[in-house]
Amino acid sequence: MDLELARQLQRPAESKILLLVADGLGGLPHPDSGRSELETAQTPHLDGLAARSALGLTVPVGSGITPGSGPGHLALFGYDPFRFQVGRGALEALGIDFALGPDDVAARGNFCTLDATGRISDRRAGRIATERSRRIVERLRAVEAGIAGQGVELFVEPVREHRFVLVLRGEGLSDVVTETDPQRTDVPPLRCEPMAPGGERTADVVNRFVGAAAEVLASEEQANGILLRGFARRPSLPAMADVWGLRPASCALYPMYRGLATLAGMTALAAGATFQDQIASVREHWDRFDFFFMHYKDTDAAGEDGDFPAKVSRIEELDAQIPALLDLDPDVLMVSGDHSTPAAMGAHSWHPVPFLLSARWVRHQPDARFDEGHCAQGALGTFPATEALPLAMAHAGRLAKYGA
Amino acid sequence: MDLELARQLQRPAESKILLLVADGLGGLPHPDSGRSELETAQTPHLDGLAARSALGLTVPVGSGITPGSGPGHLALFGYDPFRFQVGRGALEALGIDFALGPDDVAARGNFCTLDATGRISDRRAGRIATERSRRIVERLRAVEAGIAGQGVELFVEPVREHRFVLVLRGEGLSDVVTETDPQRTDVPPLRCEPMAPGGERTADVVNRFVGAAAEVLASEEQANGILLRGFARRPSLPAMADVWGLRPASCALYPMYRGLATLAGMTALAAGATFQDQIASVREHWDRFDFFFMHYKDTDAAGEDGDFPAKVSRIEELDAQIPALLDLDPDVLMVSGDHSTPAAMGAHSWHPVPFLLSARWVRHQPDARFDEGHCAQGALGTFPATEALPLAMAHAGRLAKYGA
Repeated sequence: MDLELARQLQRPAESKILLLVADGLGGLPHPDSGRSELETAQTPHLDGLAARSALGLTVPVGSGITPGSGPGHLALFGYDPFRFQVGRGALEALGIDFALGPDDVAARGNFCTLDATGRISDRRAGRIATERSRRIVERLRAVEAGIAGQGVELFVEPVREHRFVLVLRGEGLSDVVTETDPQRTDVPPLRCEPMAPGGERTADVVNRFVGAAAEVLASEEQANGILLRGFARRPSLPAMADVWGLRPASCALYPMYRGLATLAGMTALAAGATFQDQIASVREHWDRFDFFFMHYKDTDAAGEDGDFPAKVSRIEELDAQIPALLDLDPDVLMVSGDHSTPAAMGAHSWHPVPFLLSARWVRHQPDARFDEGHCAQGALGTFPATEALPLAMAHAGRLAKYGA
Repeated sequence: MDLELARQLQRPAESKILLLVADGLGGLPHPDSGRSELETAQTPHLDGLAARSALGLTVPVGSGITPGSGPGHLALFGYDPFRFQVGRGALEALGIDFALGPDDVAARGNFCTLDATGRISDRRAGRIATERSRRIVERLRAVEAGIAGQGVELFVEPVREHRFVLVLRGEGLSDVVTETDPQRTDVPPLRCEPMAPGGERTADVVNRFVGAAAEVLASEEQANGILLRGFARRPSLPAMADVWGLRPASCALYPMYRGLATLAGMTALAAGATFQDQIASVREHWDRFDFFFMHYKDTDAAGEDGDFPAKVSRIEELDAQIPALLDLDPDVLMVSGDHSTPAAMGAHSWHPVPFLLSARWVRHQPDARFDEGHCAQGALGTFPATEALPLAMAHAGRLAKYGA
């Protein structure tokens, strides 16, 4: 739904909407059994819910398009993933809970190994251990000081293994500059160049930082160089409160998903280390908000590992939590994924994602289960993921009639 | 389909298209039986037709959007309901067969009760009887004369109970003015104000009319004030004859639906008081037109009343007329609704609407019935209602090939 129309149609109500995103939920048939992860898993609670829910399949971004986590989530939050894009650098910064300011420019950094002639021999510096990487980042912070003080502040933040984030803060910066990572070996890193007028200053700061870093890292055996990609600002999204009149909250264990939710204007709820803890946190804050986004990561991780039985188990573990979720008694409950991650592929995929909407006024099939096949036959059909939130709003009694 | 493309692709043919709109047709499961109104009704003729038709579900306006009658019908007539909007005042004027001119500005009026301090105590004046309301309108017509004569004509027309229509006619009028109805009680009516340059004159005329009306109505016990909302012009729609090359006619018992059809350039066919009469009228004019829109209101009325058994009966009564409709032998017959009005909700809703297209070249399911479930599984899938007319045109052999 067009966000301007949403602003016009939204109306207040007491109802509560709960969106559960099981990351990478959708799957593909196992070559032996012919059954997908969802079809294999024993999921009595999700199946019981499906039998009284409207089912469908969401298309996260478009036919044949494999979404990253950014567009997959933004679509479920009601944002057109083509219009609102989260650059890689910004996403990486969100992923470490870095408070990216509106004028900051962030880039994803890799430590790499350079040979004696300055050519890249390993783009990931042998995937050095996270702890070692942290110590090297500390050394890079000396470089920050050298470059800064000219109206630009620099932040270098460790991520995991060979990855870090570089953030430039100051006036007159631009994210329209080229990457220094040539994305292949046996060539030297590239210089950062402006891609549009106004990028000169940023490119200059970046190149000076890379040069100074090379001096500091010269003594390192593996991580003696850096590569930067995905220069990006924090995108500016209309807040869900303004567009939909909702008081939205998120509960996600991984910073990246919290960060995406924060872009949409959701308040991040803290929680312990398990999905039970997440439910407890949502219960604790139930009265303060009327939209809750809960993120369950484990399905995607198992899918990415190509571990079919593990993904089945993660689905079954989630199923066991459904009764506690239902105890919250939301007026509208949606269960879906941000994209498919079939274990058979071991990667994100473009396949539409099972979607379930439980509310009072739904068209349901009493013999339905929650899996790809039943969702494909569901009353909601196959539809863009951006329509999930408008549907939830309608079912929550939060949209006025259109036209006389 | 884009209307410019339609203009290019349409080609003449001898074929006839019949669109039957059963108002508010779509429903929801009854809480006891789990079956919707269509699933409950005995509809041998519609079911027989469904078994040899292409089925689908239409989305009248958009996911989660509950349509008013205006957008619901305009979409079925092939008009983008966002681009072409019928304001409340214009719709109300259409609803009483008032011949709204292209420069007229219409508003919906309510008689209301004002207390001794001028505050609204009842926004609907106790829903005074239609007959009484008509007599008060006669008294208001004296006011018309007083305000008119300055290049503006005024018309006050009774509708039903406490409702009337005010039409301003003259040059330099605008519909971009505020409403006088605060939509709550215990406050005085608002003054009409221009919302854009050019609205000053209209606002002035409206305020003088309201003031003069107050004097005339001072002696009334219940209807001693008026409230005006939804100032609107008649929208300008490209005529179906120009866009699609059709000679279109409508047969609807209620003026509002006739009026909507007239906006699309349809010729209104008179008919007696029943659906049989409507069929007889269409038969009588069969040779003169090649597109017929027939409107059946009773399904919506029963749904709005929240009367599930009545809606089932109205569906069964319509079903009994299907053989007579088939006797007309249209090349393309579409049966659908402008929106859903589930009896369980007692109101219009956002749920997609069962749609049936009977023609020579269709993909059909021999075991299909005409209900929400079978339509959700139909060959046409779930699709925007604006695509119904292009589909009908194709099946009628009235669209040329696109591209070489």
